[in-house]
Amino acid sequence: MKKLFLAVLMLGPAVGLRAEDGHQLWLRPHVSVPVTVVLPARTSALLATARQELQQGWQGPAGATITLSLKKDKAIKYDGFRLSAQGVQASTERGLLYGVFELLRRQQIGQAPEAGLSNPSYEHRLLNHWDNPDGSVERGYAGKSIFWRKDSALVVTRRDQTLWQQYARANASVGINGSVLNNVNASPVILSAGYLGRVKAIADALRPYGVKTYLSVKFSSPVLLGGLKTADPLDPAVVKWWQGKVKEIYQQVPDFGGFLVKASSEGQPGPQDYGRTHADGANMLADAVRPYGGLVMWRAFVYSPSDKDRAKQAYNEFVPLDGKFRDNVIIQVKNGPVDFQPREPFSPLFGALKKTAVMPEFQITQEYLGHAIDLAYLAPMWEECLQSDTYQAGPGSTVARCTNGSVYRQAHSAMAGVSNVGLDRNWTGHDFAQANWYAFGRLAWNSSAKSAQIAEEWLKLTFQNAADATPAAEAEWNAKFLTPVAQLMLASREAIVDYSMPLGLHHIMSATYHHYGPGPWWAPSGMRADWTPPYYHQAAANGVGFDRTRTGSDAVSQYHEPLASQLNDPATCPDEYLLWFHHLPWTFRMKSGRTLWDELALHYDHGVQQVRQFQRTWDRAQPYVDAERFAAVQNKLRTQSGNAVMWKDACLLYFQQFSRLPIPAAVEPPMHTLEALIKYDTPAPRPARQP
Amino acid sequence: MKKLFLAVLMLGPAVGLRAEDGHQLWLRPHVSVPVTVVLPARTSALLATARQELQQGWQGPAGATITLSLKKDKAIKYDGFRLSAQGVQASTERGLLYGVFELLRRQQIGQAPEAGLSNPSYEHRLLNHWDNPDGSVERGYAGKSIFWRKDSALVVTRRDQTLWQQYARANASVGINGSVLNNVNASPVILSAGYLGRVKAIADALRPYGVKTYLSVKFSSPVLLGGLKTADPLDPAVVKWWQGKVKEIYQQVPDFGGFLVKASSEGQPGPQDYGRTHADGANMLADAVRPYGGLVMWRAFVYSPSDKDRAKQAYNEFVPLDGKFRDNVIIQVKNGPVDFQPREPFSPLFGALKKTAVMPEFQITQEYLGHAIDLAYLAPMWEECLQSDTYQAGPGSTVARCTNGSVYRQAHSAMAGVSNVGLDRNWTGHDFAQANWYAFGRLAWNSSAKSAQIAEEWLKLTFQNAADATPAAEAEWNAKFLTPVAQLMLASREAIVDYSMPLGLHHIMSATYHHYGPGPWWAPSGMRADWTPPYYHQAAANGVGFDRTRTGSDAVSQYHEPLASQLNDPATCPDEYLLWFHHLPWTFRMKSGRTLWDELALHYDHGVQQVRQFQRTWDRAQPYVDAERFAAVQNKLRTQSGNAVMWKDACLLYFQQFSRLPIPAAVEPPMHTLEALIKYDTPAPRPARQP
Repeated sequence: MKKLFLAVLMLGPAVGLRAEDGHQLWLRPHVSVPVTVVLPARTSALLATARQELQQGWQGPAGATITLSLKKDKAIKYDGFRLSAQGVQASTERGLLYGVFELLRRQQIGQAPEAGLSNPSYEHRLLNHWDNPDGSVERGYAGKSIFWRKDSALVVTRRDQTLWQQYARANASVGINGSVLNNVNASPVILSAGYLGRVKAIADALRPYGVKTYLSVKFSSPVLLGGLKTADPLDPAVVKWWQGKVKEIYQQVPDFGGFLVKASSEGQPGPQDYGRTHADGANMLADAVRPYGGLVMWRAFVYSPSDKDRAKQAYNEFVPLDGKFRDNVIIQVKNGPVDFQPREPFSPLFGALKKTAVMPEFQITQEYLGHAIDLAYLAPMWEECLQSDTYQAGPGSTVARCTNGSVYRQAHSAMAGVSNVGLDRNWTGHDFAQANWYAFGRLAWNSSAKSAQIAEEWLKLTFQNAADATPAAEAEWNAKFLTPVAQLMLASREAIVDYSMPLGLHHIMSATYHHYGPGPWWAPSGMRADWTPPYYHQAAANGVGFDRTRTGSDAVSQYHEPLASQLNDPATCPDEYLLWFHHLPWTFRMKSGRTLWDELALHYDHGVQQVRQFQRTWDRAQPYVDAERFAAVQNKLRTQSGNAVMWKDACLLYFQQFSRLPIPAAVEPPMHTLEALIKYDTPAPRPARQP
Repeated sequence: MKKLFLAVLMLGPAVGLRAEDGHQLWLRPHVSVPVTVVLPARTSALLATARQELQQGWQGPAGATITLSLKKDKAIKYDGFRLSAQGVQASTERGLLYGVFELLRRQQIGQAPEAGLSNPSYEHRLLNHWDNPDGSVERGYAGKSIFWRKDSALVVTRRDQTLWQQYARANASVGINGSVLNNVNASPVILSAGYLGRVKAIADALRPYGVKTYLSVKFSSPVLLGGLKTADPLDPAVVKWWQGKVKEIYQQVPDFGGFLVKASSEGQPGPQDYGRTHADGANMLADAVRPYGGLVMWRAFVYSPSDKDRAKQAYNEFVPLDGKFRDNVIIQVKNGPVDFQPREPFSPLFGALKKTAVMPEFQITQEYLGHAIDLAYLAPMWEECLQSDTYQAGPGSTVARCTNGSVYRQAHSAMAGVSNVGLDRNWTGHDFAQANWYAFGRLAWNSSAKSAQIAEEWLKLTFQNAADATPAAEAEWNAKFLTPVAQLMLASREAIVDYSMPLGLHHIMSATYHHYGPGPWWAPSGMRADWTPPYYHQAAANGVGFDRTRTGSDAVSQYHEPLASQLNDPATCPDEYLLWFHHLPWTFRMKSGRTLWDELALHYDHGVQQVRQFQRTWDRAQPYVDAERFAAVQNKLRTQSGNAVMWKDACLLYFQQFSRLPIPAAVEPPMHTLEALIKYDTPAPRPARQP
């Protein structure tokens, strides 16, 4: 089949290396081959979508007949499917559509379709959009919101609908089945009648691709929007207000998915304002949506300015509430205990709750990993988290298994990713940032998927051309493009860790530049300490790092044994997490035999040299990439290269003030002065909001 | 004697590595040894200076008697001197002072005093200060003027006098015997009675060190200051006005040296405004100062915006006037035909005039070589020029010999250096820029001196401490500090050439940043072409470089054979001057076998890597340098390192638009985008004045 596919491609028009703007994502059009599609007897928009995809994308045998059949099958979970030579079998329409996309993907990347079962790891696979009603996107680096806009916000245009449909199709192609349309720092206006009209329009555009619509809500909406005197979740008027609002929503969007809530967190109102618990708040909302099958995703991103260790707080607040949440509530937990840093250990909450559903929240948008400038393939970071062993129920209790229902029963399972999508023509700003959207979907579907395999899939779909499809050309393309560029992707996140926050350092980025670039010095007077880098790196003459051992903040004890003891001892704590858990002298002897100071400096330098290698790799890939995307990525890599040097120089020169040790000769000497770097990072206190 | 000197130093207080602010220059105080000084029978301020220097600086045998004797001696030229074990003999008081400084220098650097004759290569060894009456310094990077200040400009303070005296002493210590106190872009106000009063005060402070005072004058002063209707040099009223003004000056400053004139150049008024020649103008002034023994230095830095090759114009204007100048006029010619670029071939005027005195003008201040940020030891550049063979009277007619009277008789000989001195505590902004002041004096005294030897002298005087003076410590100091840092200095100018304008490129610097950093793109519409980089680099799809061959502008023909033919042929033209004289295809095969494009890229990269090596060298030198100067130089090297990368990236990315060739893999990939670099270099047209 593969040969035929290639032959057919060769007969098609030479798409060659014409400039591409990236708008097609991994779904670039190909000349299709005739196919006969047999559908179930009933009609639906989703089934029509499945047929259309098959007909416009089929690269298999010409004239083949493919049957999509709906059948109950105990082996098929959620929206899973079964592929066979004859077609796709599933127990839901969504399952059929996912099967179709899987079939087409395999044809496109030249893999024989694997007969057999494919079940999603998580029931709900959601994008969270931090989009505001005014069209801005918090932590968005790819233009304005695709859902909201400042002018004539509520008029739905044909262009809106097309874009939403393209967006939904991309999601469906990787198994994403839900979208939260607005920022977790939610405006109450989203629940007004006018906005709900636009929500309905969006939901209507997403529905044919099986993507459910969700909203973030502000906990004080009954006061702000409803005119009530309180938002106390136990107040009957408040309960009634929410019931009415939910009813209104479901009238517009009958398959509405539910609410995402950031409450009693970073200044957002919540149940604690009324002396109630997170459970009181979440349950009230859960009861309101339950009659309609709705869910409440309640975020655990909470921390108070007075606590001595921010990393411990979500655990401390939520563990006592285990078992007190309704079964249509899921606690949504960021992958690490602080905030989407380039590397964090997994959040101990993943291994802590036993009677409460917990879901991981990953950040697809690169808030701390270079915005849409630096090239960061994030699947290895998510894979690292998902495969981390919590030891909740003995060895093998990975984060994935603790959240997908394998370790203990939970009524619902889900994974969320904070989206990087915006109005930019290529959706994500950086062409390679598309890979993170893609990879999030693939990992949410299969939490055991390998980053390397996902990268290769995505590269083939996104960059391979018909001209590369003869056996000889394909071998060349694999050797000269696929292999080196996949290696680049796989090394990219670690390079960022190295040049920004190696060895467990975290939260030392610039506040001025909205978390892009270095800011280890940033600590305006009066600023709450846990928003400033010195709180996290604790650099001083006696060493560096945050002491979270048993004699320090004791955050290690939030982990199960044997992990807690392993992390507690600098001799056994992995280098990657060393300064996360330990405050160590600059001359501490590392496993490598080097001092901590030298090791730190070499990591920073290695990050810089890695980016330069990425540049060389990409330059060599030029013959295999269209000019437009080649130049765009090349330019971004150049800027990243400068950013990497700035990170290295800033952190080494800043820390050197405390270490008083020379920068090792093997390290590239700084090309900035500390004074110039600090001056560049303006000292005006302007804390960015952190959702 | 050396051993004694060392022993004495060891008995002195441990000066060790205490912080130094650089104000002492190469004249750092040492504990002196008693000495008896015998002076000539007469008394004078200069003789008193000589005695004082001997007494406070003597490091020779304790209780020695040193005799300073004035005696006519045909072998002694100008202010030369003869050293012997008994003392110094000279035919002028200045000669005695220079002999004293030579003696003390040798003692300090641990050399036995060489008995014998030392004559200066040039009669007049002058600093040109581009200082304005408002206290600003054109192309000054070390603070405001030491001579003029905005507030209470004419009040002479004790602090002024002390500073002027320290300045004069530094000059005398390296044989500089004249200072032009104000900018060649001269304000007429300098000749007003008020300002002449301050000139007198300065002259009085400089005189005891044998430094004569000169002024730059504006050619239109008779109009602007005198109220005449014309400044026509042949107008009797104008002649009379100048005669009167000169008389007034000499009443204040009886040993006044004369005038420096920039006329009919870059918008400055001059004789051509009245249809007269440079000779008419210069001679009129020369006649006015002749009765007092004064000189006129007339600058040949002329070029018109309409000519096709700026590099040819000084030659074209002045050669026809050869023989028409009075013998107290010297034509002052910049080392290269364009303008103090990091590398230029020597000006063909040096080999062209036979009946007119010609003097070289070097730029000590680093207008095009990194201001007071980049480390550039300029002696190698000046040595390169002085030792260039003009072939004016056959082989061996070096620029030095054509200007010091060796090749043909000229009544006066001189060398000028545009000063880098300002009010900064260390005088020159960059601690290593002091070396250029020092080296200028040493080369003006001995145009055959070697850059390497001057560098070592200066390093010893400026950085060696008593603690380094045991034999073992000195050997260590030599190996760990002197040798590597001298190598750094000697390589520094070539590194700047490499990272900014290699292979004969020139004048492609930023206008926005006053000639610091790259600006190959700078060409605002309406700007005169010969002020814009594209005029000079001529980059296009067909190649790069300025065609000055016989089939181009024919500038090569301003040089004598065999040089003209050597330069005319790209196969024999030295790489250093290749793009100065040739426009060549990007794929031109260089002597190295590489293409021009690759060679260019490797030169840029080499410059960057060199600066990083300088940083490492300096870092290793830390134990041998006081903390204050170590940190200052380290920080400047860091900034230079960034500047080098910016140059490399800017030029390679800019030229690549034309070459369309890949940057070789061996070259460090850019860390800037061309767009960002151009944006940084603001497009607002703001041409800097070019004296």
